[in-house]
Amino acid sequence: MAEQNLRITLRERPTGAVSMDHFTLERVPVPALDDGQVLVKTRYLSLDPAMRGWLNDVRSYVPPVGLGEVMRAQGIGEVIESKHAERPVGSLVLANMGWQSHYVAAGAMVQPLEAGDLPPQTYLAALGMPGMTAYFGLLDVGKPEQGQTVLVSGAAGAVGSVVGQIAKLEGCRAVGIAGGPDKCAVVVDELGFDACIDYKNEPSLSKAIRRTCPDGVHVYFDNVGGETLNTALRRMALRGRIVICGAISTYNATTPQPGPSNYMALLVNRARMEGFVVFDYAARFPEARERMAQWIRDGKLISREHVIHGLEHAVDGLNMLFSGGNTGKLILEV
Amino acid sequence: MAEQNLRITLRERPTGAVSMDHFTLERVPVPALDDGQVLVKTRYLSLDPAMRGWLNDVRSYVPPVGLGEVMRAQGIGEVIESKHAERPVGSLVLANMGWQSHYVAAGAMVQPLEAGDLPPQTYLAALGMPGMTAYFGLLDVGKPEQGQTVLVSGAAGAVGSVVGQIAKLEGCRAVGIAGGPDKCAVVVDELGFDACIDYKNEPSLSKAIRRTCPDGVHVYFDNVGGETLNTALRRMALRGRIVICGAISTYNATTPQPGPSNYMALLVNRARMEGFVVFDYAARFPEARERMAQWIRDGKLISREHVIHGLEHAVDGLNMLFSGGNTGKLILEV
Repeated sequence: MAEQNLRITLRERPTGAVSMDHFTLERVPVPALDDGQVLVKTRYLSLDPAMRGWLNDVRSYVPPVGLGEVMRAQGIGEVIESKHAERPVGSLVLANMGWQSHYVAAGAMVQPLEAGDLPPQTYLAALGMPGMTAYFGLLDVGKPEQGQTVLVSGAAGAVGSVVGQIAKLEGCRAVGIAGGPDKCAVVVDELGFDACIDYKNEPSLSKAIRRTCPDGVHVYFDNVGGETLNTALRRMALRGRIVICGAISTYNATTPQPGPSNYMALLVNRARMEGFVVFDYAARFPEARERMAQWIRDGKLISREHVIHGLEHAVDGLNMLFSGGNTGKLILEV
Repeated sequence: MAEQNLRITLRERPTGAVSMDHFTLERVPVPALDDGQVLVKTRYLSLDPAMRGWLNDVRSYVPPVGLGEVMRAQGIGEVIESKHAERPVGSLVLANMGWQSHYVAAGAMVQPLEAGDLPPQTYLAALGMPGMTAYFGLLDVGKPEQGQTVLVSGAAGAVGSVVGQIAKLEGCRAVGIAGGPDKCAVVVDELGFDACIDYKNEPSLSKAIRRTCPDGVHVYFDNVGGETLNTALRRMALRGRIVICGAISTYNATTPQPGPSNYMALLVNRARMEGFVVFDYAARFPEARERMAQWIRDGKLISREHVIHGLEHAVDGLNMLFSGGNTGKLILEV
C-alpha cells in the first residue's frame, strides 16, 4: 500500500489545558485490508468538549482513551477501498474513526451516510451527536411545556444552539447565555432565541436572568457548570428542571471545583436536577434525525457549523472550544 | 382571666448556633375569647431542624419568623375554654401554636385530633409532619421499586427513621447513616433497617456505602447535606434518585457552605436530584395518615419519640437536633 496514515495518538495524560505535547503526530503505513474490511479516508472530524474528559484516567460513561491509542473522535469519511459488499468505494460513512486521515475497520463498524440534499457535515452537527443531545436532553429530560421558559448556557455552541431552536419550535420562550456580543447576536438574530445574556459583559448574571426570564426558568439546560449553574439554581420556577448536559467551565481545571452551593434551591422550588447520556437514546436517533432533517429542509432549524482545516490543528481546535472561539458546531476538515 | 401565657418570642436573629439570648421568655396575660375562638393549653410541641431556617431573614417556602413574634411550632393541646361549638372543652387539637403554654385562635384554625388508640404525640411524629415528609418524599419523589436499595441519612432522626421503615415495607433494602453505635443499634435492631453506617466511626463513608449498598444506591434520601450528600452522589446506581429533604449539617453554618462538587455524577449515572416541600401534599395527608396508622397498629411501623420537658428548654432541644442528641422525633412536653 502506498497510502500513509497521518494520525494523532495520546502520549501523556494532560493536567489542565491540552497541548500538542500530550500527543504524537505520526505517519504510519495503512495496512492491507482483510475480507469484510473497508479503508475510509477521513473528511470531517467532530471536535467536542466531552473529548477533554476522555483524556482523564477516571471512570465515566465511556472508558478513557488509552496511552498510545489514536485520539477518539466521530467523523465522516469516504470509502476508498472496500472488501465489504455493502460499503462500496465512493460511499460516505459515519464512524468513530479518531484523529487520523485513514481508518481501516470492518464494514459493519462504519455506518452508511445518506446525506441526500443536506451537507454531510450536518450529520456531525444538528443531525449528529450534538443535535441528538439537544433533542433528547431538552425533550425527554427537560420536558418543556408550551409557554414555558427554557434557559440554555453555551447557547452559541453545538448543543446549545440547537436546544434553543427546538425550544422555540415547541412553543417555549428561549433564552441563551453566551460569551460576547457577536455570539449573542448570532443566537438572537440568526437562531431566533428570544434573548441572549452576554455573561462576559453583564454585571450580574442573576439580575440578567431575572430580567430575561421574568416568570422564572422552567428548564435550565446546562452545558457549562460552575457559577452559571449555581446562579441559575436560584432563578428556577416552581417544579423547574435542570438538565445536566456538561460542565465545560470546569473540564480543564487542575484543582477540585466547587459544587453548586445553591442546590437547596431545589427544595424551595420543588425543582429537579438530572443528568443524561445521549447514547442511551440510540434506538431513537433515527426518529429524531428524521424530524430534525425535515425542520432543516423547512428552514425551521439551522445547523450552524464552524469549520477549521487540517488534522495538525486538532488540538488547537479542541482548545478553541474552551476559550469560546467557536460559534456553532466545531468541525475539523481533514 | 387568671390564666397567664408563658411564651418565647424571637428577640434577635441568630448567626450560627441558637441560644436563649436570641429569644425572650415572658409571661403575658391570656386575652378573653371572642366568639368562635378557643383557648388551647399546650401539651406537646414539635422541635424540628427546619425551625433553624425559619429564623433566617431569607426567602424560603415559608416566611421567616418575625422579630417579636412567638417562635413558630406545631403542637398538640387541649381546649380549656371554648366559644366554638365544634371544638368543645376537653378536646385535643393540632395547631401551629408556637412556643407558648396557651394559644388563642379561631376554632377553625385548630384541627381536631382523634388519636383513638394511638398516643397523641404520634401525630407529631410518624403521623405528623416528619412522617408525611418521609412518606411523600420517599414514595412520590424517590419512587423506590421492590428490591432496590434506599440509603437514608439522619436515619435515627424523626424523618429518616420512618423513611427506612417504609422502604422495608415497600420491599426495598434499607441502609441508614447515623452518628454513633447506639443510634445505629436502634436503627437496625429496633427499626429493622438492613444496615446502618456509623459515620462518626467509619474511616471512609464512601467505602462504607459501597460495602452496605453493593448494587449502588437507587434512592438516597438526604436529610443532612454536606460531605454526606457529596459522597452518596458517587455511589448512585444507574438512574438513581436523590431526594433533597434537608441539610441539617449546614443550618448553623456562619460561612457559605460548599455545594456537592460531585454533582456531575448525576450525568455519569443518569441520576436525578430533586427537592420537595411536604406541604404540597397536604390534600393527601389523610390517606397517608390512615395507611401509616394501620402499619403502627399492626406493629409494622414504629413511631420513635424522644421527649424532653419544659417550655424553658425549647432552645436546648433545638440545639440537641444539631448535636445529634436525639434518637427519633424530638418532642417537648410543656
